[in-house]
Amino acid sequence: MTKQAGRVTLPSEEGFVKETIEIMERWGADAIRDSDGTLLDAEIKALDAKIYTAYFPTRGHNEFISRHMEECPQIYLLSDYTLARETELTVDLLQSYYKEQLDVDYLHDPKAYWQVTDRTTGQLVPEQHWHVLEQEHKVVIRQALPWHEYTVSFLAYIKWDPVQMYNHITNDWGDKPHEIPFDVKQPHTNAFIYETMKQWLQDNPEVDVVRFTTFFYQFSLVFNQYGKEKFVDWFGYGASVSVAMMEDFRKEKGYALTAEDFVDQGYYNSTFRVPSKTYLEYVDFVSRFVSVETRKLVDLVHESKKEAIMFLGDQWIGVEPYGPYFESVGLDAVVGSVGDGTTLRMISDIPHVKYTEGRFLPYFFPDVFFEGNDPVIEARQNWLTARRAILRKPIDRMGYGGYLSLAYKFPEFVDYVEQITDEFREIHAHIRRSKPYTGMKVAVLNCWGALRTWQAFTVAHSLYSKQAYSYYGILESLSGMNVDVEFISFDDVLERGIDSSIDVIINAGDAATAFSGGDVWKNTALVEVLREWVYGGGGLIGVGEPAAVSHQGRFFQLADCFGVDKETGFSLSTDKYFTQPAAGHFITEGISGFDFGESMKNVYALHSGVDILEYSRGEIHLSANQAGEGRAVYIAGLPYSPQNSRLLMRSLYYAAGKEAELHRWYSANPSCEVHAYPASGMYAVVNNSQEPQTAAVYDGQGKLSEVQLAAGGIVWQEIRED
Amino acid sequence: MTKQAGRVTLPSEEGFVKETIEIMERWGADAIRDSDGTLLDAEIKALDAKIYTAYFPTRGHNEFISRHMEECPQIYLLSDYTLARETELTVDLLQSYYKEQLDVDYLHDPKAYWQVTDRTTGQLVPEQHWHVLEQEHKVVIRQALPWHEYTVSFLAYIKWDPVQMYNHITNDWGDKPHEIPFDVKQPHTNAFIYETMKQWLQDNPEVDVVRFTTFFYQFSLVFNQYGKEKFVDWFGYGASVSVAMMEDFRKEKGYALTAEDFVDQGYYNSTFRVPSKTYLEYVDFVSRFVSVETRKLVDLVHESKKEAIMFLGDQWIGVEPYGPYFESVGLDAVVGSVGDGTTLRMISDIPHVKYTEGRFLPYFFPDVFFEGNDPVIEARQNWLTARRAILRKPIDRMGYGGYLSLAYKFPEFVDYVEQITDEFREIHAHIRRSKPYTGMKVAVLNCWGALRTWQAFTVAHSLYSKQAYSYYGILESLSGMNVDVEFISFDDVLERGIDSSIDVIINAGDAATAFSGGDVWKNTALVEVLREWVYGGGGLIGVGEPAAVSHQGRFFQLADCFGVDKETGFSLSTDKYFTQPAAGHFITEGISGFDFGESMKNVYALHSGVDILEYSRGEIHLSANQAGEGRAVYIAGLPYSPQNSRLLMRSLYYAAGKEAELHRWYSANPSCEVHAYPASGMYAVVNNSQEPQTAAVYDGQGKLSEVQLAAGGIVWQEIRED
Repeated sequence: MTKQAGRVTLPSEEGFVKETIEIMERWGADAIRDSDGTLLDAEIKALDAKIYTAYFPTRGHNEFISRHMEECPQIYLLSDYTLARETELTVDLLQSYYKEQLDVDYLHDPKAYWQVTDRTTGQLVPEQHWHVLEQEHKVVIRQALPWHEYTVSFLAYIKWDPVQMYNHITNDWGDKPHEIPFDVKQPHTNAFIYETMKQWLQDNPEVDVVRFTTFFYQFSLVFNQYGKEKFVDWFGYGASVSVAMMEDFRKEKGYALTAEDFVDQGYYNSTFRVPSKTYLEYVDFVSRFVSVETRKLVDLVHESKKEAIMFLGDQWIGVEPYGPYFESVGLDAVVGSVGDGTTLRMISDIPHVKYTEGRFLPYFFPDVFFEGNDPVIEARQNWLTARRAILRKPIDRMGYGGYLSLAYKFPEFVDYVEQITDEFREIHAHIRRSKPYTGMKVAVLNCWGALRTWQAFTVAHSLYSKQAYSYYGILESLSGMNVDVEFISFDDVLERGIDSSIDVIINAGDAATAFSGGDVWKNTALVEVLREWVYGGGGLIGVGEPAAVSHQGRFFQLADCFGVDKETGFSLSTDKYFTQPAAGHFITEGISGFDFGESMKNVYALHSGVDILEYSRGEIHLSANQAGEGRAVYIAGLPYSPQNSRLLMRSLYYAAGKEAELHRWYSANPSCEVHAYPASGMYAVVNNSQEPQTAAVYDGQGKLSEVQLAAGGIVWQEIRED
Repeated sequence: MTKQAGRVTLPSEEGFVKETIEIMERWGADAIRDSDGTLLDAEIKALDAKIYTAYFPTRGHNEFISRHMEECPQIYLLSDYTLARETELTVDLLQSYYKEQLDVDYLHDPKAYWQVTDRTTGQLVPEQHWHVLEQEHKVVIRQALPWHEYTVSFLAYIKWDPVQMYNHITNDWGDKPHEIPFDVKQPHTNAFIYETMKQWLQDNPEVDVVRFTTFFYQFSLVFNQYGKEKFVDWFGYGASVSVAMMEDFRKEKGYALTAEDFVDQGYYNSTFRVPSKTYLEYVDFVSRFVSVETRKLVDLVHESKKEAIMFLGDQWIGVEPYGPYFESVGLDAVVGSVGDGTTLRMISDIPHVKYTEGRFLPYFFPDVFFEGNDPVIEARQNWLTARRAILRKPIDRMGYGGYLSLAYKFPEFVDYVEQITDEFREIHAHIRRSKPYTGMKVAVLNCWGALRTWQAFTVAHSLYSKQAYSYYGILESLSGMNVDVEFISFDDVLERGIDSSIDVIINAGDAATAFSGGDVWKNTALVEVLREWVYGGGGLIGVGEPAAVSHQGRFFQLADCFGVDKETGFSLSTDKYFTQPAAGHFITEGISGFDFGESMKNVYALHSGVDILEYSRGEIHLSANQAGEGRAVYIAGLPYSPQNSRLLMRSLYYAAGKEAELHRWYSANPSCEVHAYPASGMYAVVNNSQEPQTAAVYDGQGKLSEVQLAAGGIVWQEIRED
């Protein structure tokens, strides 16, 4: 077979032409990119490949911004909680912030924009009771109430780009200048950004693709007094704030934002918080503004006959690929870092672009590519998790980033990438843009809905979180499962009901978070719609604390559907008799041993009709219940593993009443999965594990055959129509 | 040494005179009692011993009550949650209740006393929308909202005494008549009770002590449709309700009680619920009424020159030994079942009686005294746990119950009880009513305070509860520890501040329960008082979810004191750096391995100053923090064990800043404890374990000596003054 080429983006660097050409051929790369810190030789740019260049619209021009420091991006910060021991109290504003990153904003009147809050009562301190000591960065509160804690919410300027800062500190870049960011909302900056872009486009005719890294507003990334990360929220809109933005918002909406709308008691509107109406309106407002500004840049790029692609990360705030304004931006493509199946789907499902690209791991940096380390380990893990998702919804291109010269020193790594780039193209060749077989449609229901498609349960891009991994596993499982997935919000359900295409709804998360839903479960309209749907035949899966809020004798407000509730200490007096696991059940067939991750305590069955599937430590962790014509399944937690993915899949088929359809394009071995593409006449059996596997495989008619798979292997076969 | 006698009550039975005399001598008994189901021979009654006879004021007279069934006690019951699928809905009232126990009350107008509630909205259904089908025990709701759940709260009559019912069902008594209870609040019953008592006193001149078992209102004990316990609450006032009681309450208080004040969303005012003001007023109202009626019976007994003692259990509701009316009742004594150290202290600390008596386990019933079983096992366990508490605050008498003839068949048991009755009298002889040495005073702070002295974290008398044992262990530890203990309520603190005698305050429990406190922690006055006290030098210990309510960015409202808070999912974006356990610490000295029971998840340190004493699974389970001049200790859970008792003790001394005083009357071996009685000049070293122990013992000046102890042994020594 002739070597296929294409769909692969290769990083290069100066003085590495010959090797670049060699790797380019081996990996079949058709595009070459620079990276943060690397430049491309003219010889490289002249090759028969698209040239991608990273472009940073809001940093790297200290000569400009240092003359307009009032145009740095802003952020609302919360001081430490400070205890009053007498009636006068001094609060140190920057005590636990990194002064190299942040300056207090004294340009705008503190009395107009700051808030001093008694956190014991929740009341604002009247402005005549506090004053600012500007030289010391302190606020003095008079007439404080002793033994109350106080905070000051204040506006700050971000004077060091957080991404560059992160790299600078992490890589110990010493006296390399700090790149000062600037805010597109401000007049000088706005003009500067477009002028600079125009000039750059003129100066870089050889560039085919402008890789925006990224646009205007950084996700929240704030450092502490030791120069270490203090908080990070990949979805945080905190650094999009400015007096100008707030004033425009007030003019449009007719009400003013306050500091508390941003600092949110110190939670900074984490996506785990049930978003307030105000915050959602702010997100929408910023997104609309950003889309307009972004469009201008994209138009300039297009006018230069180049492509405009966006890196999904860093200053991506306000672009919202699943938001209402994304289509209007007119981007050609989105590229994102692939951490796992979930993040792959977050990229590959993005609508309104010509293509998507995944940047795979490991990044070619010395933290992985050092002597004695084997970069293939991370590469293999990354590929196998991502491949599951690619087989459901492929990204169009793949690539790497960093120093190619580093990777080049690891021939086994070069070999492995050659293998997977071939495999990637082979996937595309077989499925030919056709839709894979899906057994049903699953909807994930939370406060955020489609806006946070494949972004639920995430603190920072594919990073572990103790209180999220047991829910994130749901997404990771779904990312490579033969089901259609959509993300719906409570507002969607309240406004439009439940779409008839949906087979199963999943609600998951810790109580009171945006993912479980919190007080929305006291909204009777929501409960009515869901009950009617379940009792009418719908499938419901709850993980952790679904539909949970303490109200009228229930903790799970859909306890009637689940047949289980969580004991929160109030009904200990009521005997709980149902502890006996079912003798055998469709859901647990072939599943041995359970891992519920952080799990959930004190869940019990309401009646004898509940199928208890796992009971230990005096509590239920897995159960199923018939509710009218429908079914509900409760799972205490679902960290990702092939076995848990299988457990979820069986739960979905059971909840949907589609048990008879499970054995279609199905592997009895949980380490293997089957993906069929009826329109292209092919199906793939993949081994997601790093050991050889034998899989009993059911085809679309349920006919069984045995497939042998190498470690991490994939086997393509034609669909036979009998 | 001449055999001591006294302080022991022996059960006897018909036809067992010779053996009774033998045992009486061996155990040194000076009182003889009958039990439920046994009678005493005339020869026994003539012995030189006090004669106790059980007396049941409100049952055992079916000939009377069957003519006045409208005078049975009542209870508010909640129907099952019933889902409306259309606009008409039928709710089955007795579907999950035991019809042999309960009758629906149709004598009083359902529209006046029942409530039909939409549990989805929490709204009452207007009375014109529902009607009763009396024959079928059903309620029909019209204009129901589909997909809402409804309940009916209705009045029922209790027609079978719950204690007799329990014994009847458990022992399979067949067609033995069901004893019908009657309510002292009702006119015929009230007259009957006193007439009957007068007659009985006349008829039983040989009785010295009337052992009331008990008075008028049974704690909540309701059975389900299968004749099994449905709910049990040892503190439940549910069965004290009646139309007459409610009407009197309304007249006095000026507002009416409703069904919901009792059924409480199905939680039936469990002590774990934060009690409403209404419920507390009702408890007080009933207690006052009961004390007046009880006083009348006690007066009759006293007029007959007999003693009146109360069994603390069964129909004890409203007597409240730690309540404001108990003194006025004039009882001579209280006797209660000893389950452990906590229940012993619950008896022995009761004020306003001449003496207290503990009924030890095992009860002489065939469930323990059968061939092949060794009753000594339970007896030893019972004695060793109780003895710790006896050494702090002795009960005055001990005794047993049941069939002496059964116990007599187990000579090793008879031997063992001979040994412990001697030991019991020896304790009294040595301590001579003097107060033991205590190192400090500890206050347990919750919603109930003194009213529930030694009764916190209890569902039913000394029964295990999954969600309580990790807190109950605090009481069990304290029951035998050399500290003074008192129970204070939030209202106490709000009204009177914190008494200067208190060294350490403990707040413990699951969030939102009456023991942790729930919304009271939003009361800034409470937080102010506690902070001022701690920062001024007080000691605070929090177990589980202390001071917990989600408010203004904190979950633990005293997080500033503890230095730790619980992550509830909202601040996952904030980095948590403090994970390193302290290298060594006073609290954990000599403690190896931890058992936090049900434990608590996701607790983290707020700053580097926190002493982390145990960190595992990404969370803190034990920590200490300096807060001003005071200290706070956090413990994730504390099931009882000698080691955890020691952990708590060290935490108390640390929190109080009294580390230097720990080694006074202290055993380095956690299985042993030292109790000193300076006024009597004696101290005891006890081995609480069932293995021999060697203990390094510190005396009152901190001087060390080594003591050898037999399994379960006790050694008395004179205090030497140097």
